[in-house]
Amino acid sequence: MSYDDIHRISIEKGFFAPSCEIYSDAQAGFWEYGPLGVALRNRYIELWRRELVRRDGMMEIDGTQAMSKSVFVASDHLQSFADPIVICTKCGSITRADRMIAEKTGKSLPEMLPDNKYDQLIQENNLTCNACHSPYGKVSRFNMMFRLEIGPKGEEAYLRPETCQSIFVDYPRLFKTMRAKLPIGFAQFGKSFRNEIAPRQSLVRLREFYQAEIEVFLNPKNVNDFSKFDEVRDYEIPVTVDNGHHVRRRCIDLVEEGIIPNKFIAYYLAILMQFYEKTGIDTSRARFRKLGDDEKAFYALVAFDFEVETSIGWMELVACNYRSDYDLSRHSKVSGTDLTVQDDGEKVLPHIFELSMGVDRSIYTIMEHSLVTETKRRMLKFKPYLSPIQVAVFPLVNKDKLPSIAKEIYHSMKLDYDIFYDGSGSIGRRYRRQDEIGTPICITVDYDTPKDNSVTIRQRDSMAQERIRIDDLKDRIELFLSLR
Amino acid sequence: MSYDDIHRISIEKGFFAPSCEIYSDAQAGFWEYGPLGVALRNRYIELWRRELVRRDGMMEIDGTQAMSKSVFVASDHLQSFADPIVICTKCGSITRADRMIAEKTGKSLPEMLPDNKYDQLIQENNLTCNACHSPYGKVSRFNMMFRLEIGPKGEEAYLRPETCQSIFVDYPRLFKTMRAKLPIGFAQFGKSFRNEIAPRQSLVRLREFYQAEIEVFLNPKNVNDFSKFDEVRDYEIPVTVDNGHHVRRRCIDLVEEGIIPNKFIAYYLAILMQFYEKTGIDTSRARFRKLGDDEKAFYALVAFDFEVETSIGWMELVACNYRSDYDLSRHSKVSGTDLTVQDDGEKVLPHIFELSMGVDRSIYTIMEHSLVTETKRRMLKFKPYLSPIQVAVFPLVNKDKLPSIAKEIYHSMKLDYDIFYDGSGSIGRRYRRQDEIGTPICITVDYDTPKDNSVTIRQRDSMAQERIRIDDLKDRIELFLSLR
Repeated sequence: MSYDDIHRISIEKGFFAPSCEIYSDAQAGFWEYGPLGVALRNRYIELWRRELVRRDGMMEIDGTQAMSKSVFVASDHLQSFADPIVICTKCGSITRADRMIAEKTGKSLPEMLPDNKYDQLIQENNLTCNACHSPYGKVSRFNMMFRLEIGPKGEEAYLRPETCQSIFVDYPRLFKTMRAKLPIGFAQFGKSFRNEIAPRQSLVRLREFYQAEIEVFLNPKNVNDFSKFDEVRDYEIPVTVDNGHHVRRRCIDLVEEGIIPNKFIAYYLAILMQFYEKTGIDTSRARFRKLGDDEKAFYALVAFDFEVETSIGWMELVACNYRSDYDLSRHSKVSGTDLTVQDDGEKVLPHIFELSMGVDRSIYTIMEHSLVTETKRRMLKFKPYLSPIQVAVFPLVNKDKLPSIAKEIYHSMKLDYDIFYDGSGSIGRRYRRQDEIGTPICITVDYDTPKDNSVTIRQRDSMAQERIRIDDLKDRIELFLSLR
Repeated sequence: MSYDDIHRISIEKGFFAPSCEIYSDAQAGFWEYGPLGVALRNRYIELWRRELVRRDGMMEIDGTQAMSKSVFVASDHLQSFADPIVICTKCGSITRADRMIAEKTGKSLPEMLPDNKYDQLIQENNLTCNACHSPYGKVSRFNMMFRLEIGPKGEEAYLRPETCQSIFVDYPRLFKTMRAKLPIGFAQFGKSFRNEIAPRQSLVRLREFYQAEIEVFLNPKNVNDFSKFDEVRDYEIPVTVDNGHHVRRRCIDLVEEGIIPNKFIAYYLAILMQFYEKTGIDTSRARFRKLGDDEKAFYALVAFDFEVETSIGWMELVACNYRSDYDLSRHSKVSGTDLTVQDDGEKVLPHIFELSMGVDRSIYTIMEHSLVTETKRRMLKFKPYLSPIQVAVFPLVNKDKLPSIAKEIYHSMKLDYDIFYDGSGSIGRRYRRQDEIGTPICITVDYDTPKDNSVTIRQRDSMAQERIRIDDLKDRIELFLSLR
């Protein structure tokens, strides 16, 4: 159940693998999805669309990844989205200052300190270069955005470090043309880029990564006048407050006790949790951690991190930030555009609450939480509606008419399902191979099939086998793969 | 039926719009998809997966967009993927030389000439700067890849100018772990980037764009020993040979007459055409244009462009290139990796045939070919399985119990469909609004509904209305939206 197991399975079975690996100048922090990874990720995003975007009546957009410089002047990323680094005065090796200090001193530091604070900590603790033990120079800042030059004149632009900037910039036109009313959610699935100094393990900290972000625009005076809250009123969610105190309480209690500031935020935290319950992640090992003032991103007024326990620690899957009017007021000022809208008879500059989801990390966590080892087999116990291969079909033996019937079944279903045909090895070994990649149903064509037009269906989890008519296969599979 | 109509509808209705438009430093060649565009594009890609990727048993991957420098040394993009430009000696304005010459002389030029050829043409024709009429300097080259600097040391990498490079670099591991056999297709949907000097209209020539590429790996000795060909043997496709001669002939005839070089290529051109027939593009206005030697990309041995007639001319939607072993032999050499595989008892460096599809242009063309203007209405006659909004639901009037029943229907279906609730304006106007964005079915709740538990279904194309029980709605819609 460890990081290493998932890593090995991923590479061996085609879930994900490092980019450009045949080249010696392959860069860390870039990973690709193989065939099983693409299928799992696509189904995960379909579930996100269904259980969050459509459930809440949001609008989905797909913006460009390259955006103008002004966008990041307004968002303050050009100024503030920079990590502290130190360069060794002798060997020139470059290190992220905050992580190096935390690792060497064993202390946990606040999210962001001023540069001279880091200098002081390095001096106080006598910290020197990992490689050559020489002293470090002064702490400086490294901006994490990738710069682009557009056109032959090289006009300055950047790859977006978060997808939401597209939503902020597009919203005035969308709001009008789509005849929207507050509150309204905008959603986007796409890539973001961060030039990390020290990318971490595989999908956990990437330089090029997928986000599925939701930005809900609201009139701040209505944060408690919100009828959808009734859908989640009695639903229990786990919250860890910044002082470490952990509670699992009904949404209404959390709002009344002031642990969650209002009904609006409580509703979105609740539907996010309900979404993750459907992904197969073990939500008894999940929590919303309310961030202290020194941990929050520079644009957040209130922030909860949705975290899940994994073999490599608590992992942040979703940052839930109340960004207030930070973004819109800055974009309005820098662009000179009026970004207010009419609501309730008044002009309002909407506030924004976001659910900023790391997709690759979520996929990693689903895989880790789905991995089950039994005496005789190892399997990925994916929810059937998320499984990359949905159905496998086997001839019991490779002779007589059995392969041709099995292939006929395969061809009759291949347009509608991700289906795999396997005719090699013992039947037990073929079952095991499918268990390992999480295929929920295997169909076997045997010697009775030509006589009774039936096949054996074997379920992954129970290993139960059942005889079923070929004509009924499609309905049966449809039912089995549907969201229950 | 013109470019301008589609442009206006797109922006007004939320199909697509320019990126970063509130800023004065917004760059040309970057467009975003709005809510209707995202839905249309996603369904288009699902159709591509079904009718090409799954039909042919291909493997889909999703690689990173940022790739190491070595990849483009091997692919030769660092050297050859550059456009000829001229800079005005007085005002400094920069122009793409080949297009400027073609426009001013009215002559069509071959795809690529040596720089001194362009210099000669400029001199012979006395061509001067558009802006200030001063002489141009000498032609030079502008590389169309976007350069990135990775990590604090700024290691050189590039945004891929074509998605297929990920496939070439990943294939050795995939081939092995997925237990593949030649021939095998790899597919990828994702973004590519080209730093165009002069981006064109909206989705037609973008700097950041979506490709859906298919790369089929084959043993070159088996190009005519290919049993799948029988599926398309008698299927007719239109081919325009480089000398302008146009034929529409069965695949077998085209192969036998040498117009298409072999059965392998003919099969993939045929299934591509069959795919486009299902998109609603008018394939009587489509052709495969066989490119002459001076028009082909630098890596192509044989090339057919799949082109469709639009209001702004014949548009290339798919480049079908026989890349031979160009890519694999170069990647093998530069990386020092053996890229051969076992096939038929021998070691083979596979050849590659590709279907390189421009997704944004395809979406544009579907919209243009779907636009129909009748006396009293304008509509986008999308195939029901591609329509962005699948169902709309209306209360006939906004009183009595009608809105609450209509909303109940809306909520009962909103997770499964892209459904729109509309309660404002006359019923005729609401129908018209849905026609305009291509919604195939509208459901109306009227005064009989509370009595007979039935609603009226109205079909977009025929405007036929039909009474149907609420309980039967879902089956009816499912059938209507399915691929027929």
